[in-house]
Amino acid sequence: MGKIRLTGKNKGDNAMRIGIDMGGMSFKLGLVDDDNRIVARHVIPTELDIPYQDMIRKTAQAVRDLTEKAGVALEECTGIGVGTPGMLDDTGRVILYSNNFGWENVPFAEEMEKLLPLPISMANDADAAALGEVCAGAAQGARSAVLLTLGTGVGGGVIIDGHIFHGPVRGGCEIGHMVIAAGGETCTCGRSGCMEAYCSASALIRMATEEMEKSPESALRKLCDEAGGKMNGKIPFDAAQMGDEAGRRVIDEYESYLACGIANVINIFRPEKVILGGGVAAQRDNLTVPLTEMVKNMCFGNPYGEVADIVVSVLGNDAGIIGAANLV
Amino acid sequence: MGKIRLTGKNKGDNAMRIGIDMGGMSFKLGLVDDDNRIVARHVIPTELDIPYQDMIRKTAQAVRDLTEKAGVALEECTGIGVGTPGMLDDTGRVILYSNNFGWENVPFAEEMEKLLPLPISMANDADAAALGEVCAGAAQGARSAVLLTLGTGVGGGVIIDGHIFHGPVRGGCEIGHMVIAAGGETCTCGRSGCMEAYCSASALIRMATEEMEKSPESALRKLCDEAGGKMNGKIPFDAAQMGDEAGRRVIDEYESYLACGIANVINIFRPEKVILGGGVAAQRDNLTVPLTEMVKNMCFGNPYGEVADIVVSVLGNDAGIIGAANLV
Repeated sequence: MGKIRLTGKNKGDNAMRIGIDMGGMSFKLGLVDDDNRIVARHVIPTELDIPYQDMIRKTAQAVRDLTEKAGVALEECTGIGVGTPGMLDDTGRVILYSNNFGWENVPFAEEMEKLLPLPISMANDADAAALGEVCAGAAQGARSAVLLTLGTGVGGGVIIDGHIFHGPVRGGCEIGHMVIAAGGETCTCGRSGCMEAYCSASALIRMATEEMEKSPESALRKLCDEAGGKMNGKIPFDAAQMGDEAGRRVIDEYESYLACGIANVINIFRPEKVILGGGVAAQRDNLTVPLTEMVKNMCFGNPYGEVADIVVSVLGNDAGIIGAANLV
Repeated sequence: MGKIRLTGKNKGDNAMRIGIDMGGMSFKLGLVDDDNRIVARHVIPTELDIPYQDMIRKTAQAVRDLTEKAGVALEECTGIGVGTPGMLDDTGRVILYSNNFGWENVPFAEEMEKLLPLPISMANDADAAALGEVCAGAAQGARSAVLLTLGTGVGGGVIIDGHIFHGPVRGGCEIGHMVIAAGGETCTCGRSGCMEAYCSASALIRMATEEMEKSPESALRKLCDEAGGKMNGKIPFDAAQMGDEAGRRVIDEYESYLACGIANVINIFRPEKVILGGGVAAQRDNLTVPLTEMVKNMCFGNPYGEVADIVVSVLGNDAGIIGAANLV
């Protein structure tokens, strides 16, 4: 499980694998070849108002539809990998709890295996995406990397020596819920000061909204008005680039917390790469260049310790599918 | 390297190993049997005013003296494990940098192997102590544990599946230098708000000294005066137990930061045990009982995630020797 398949290796034995990225809006399926290319795709809507058994049946049918579309027999595939939100049990086969789906104790792998002649492997969706980036994306060639997705929350996936690291006991590696500012902003998890409460896109929007209210003459305000009065994570970056002081303050604050969280990740995991994903990562060099400068002075043991490269994800939504396929 | 030797296993093959705990004051050597008992000991003073080559020669001689004292031939031992402060290189054989010893790029393992007919394995001293507690101490029987030493600084050692986790690239896993209070107290590492700056014995003494100055009528003050005006990490615990409000405030503050750091460790590593060592851990249940209560409500995914037991180290200084021996 989680073994890296090196591009170009075993070309003679080009076994296909199926990757499924289970999201709150849709389940995205891909047929993935040995070079980690998605050679066929299929998508079904996530239906949460039906019993999970029915959703699993629809997923199994979607697997059949995918392979049929690609003209590949199911038996030619080596297995199915699944990335799911929420927490898996110790066997990695039961979804103990998924907030997004409202599922509890769903024996997903077992039910799927009753319907399909292929073995099922599962992982948390953020972990699968991290594995995808290591197998075929921004951290290709690295044996170790940490993916931080900066979206509604801060998701995290840690790859050590080509394998997903999720800790030995149930609960998973939740980097987004590492407190970096004790007693600070309330997090969705109930604690105060988590990385998620300072480094998510939602946190950036909160910071920008607060700053905009204090600075009615700012470009930050103007850009928000032009966007119909709805702040988003791009506006403060745009304002800062226009030379707007309010926008600059927001970005400086956001980046200082993000640098703090990334330096913690480096001090703890010493990965070769830190990959930023999610909406905020669309800023690319705008984000990675200043962060690299800030982080390099924060890591313990510098100049003796190695400081990871900070890069942005390149696979986007495909990371989850490719990573899931590499669970097989 | 780092493989757990289960007590009672392989009794027929009772090979001895030598463990060396290199400290700033002394190098402590132990001959460790297959049941992880230290059957002979030897100590030499750490001499930092001589060339490292000479200190290595003295260490090799100390190994010979140890085995001679025990009546065991060197050849009956399987190897020598060494726990050292500072940072090792990627091969784990060269001390890249040790602040305590003032050493840089010291090829310790190679030099020792020139002088002794045994293979040398090395690890960071906190890592070795963590391994010792897992092999024969507070986390015996666990496959995974995190040791946090609450002393002058906050040291950390992480054991995953019976092996020391130090991250894939140079620099080590430095849990003490995880920022938990961004922008807070300055840490010895140069950052602000590290766990070390809030959870070390030094931090506790700082908090107690500040509180004492604000509360001249407190038991905290009285106990400090009785101790010759020198605050220590025991006084605030004693004052709190006497019902002193100033003492209680110090302990509440200290424990809230420590709980925060421990909950981060659990959210990141999901170990079976968190072991507290160092001077502050002498408080035992005084510390672990309230911490257990605080931490259990802080961990992500509770009640679905598992929350590690919080225990205190039982091997004390022997953890480093036994852990080092288990590097062999």
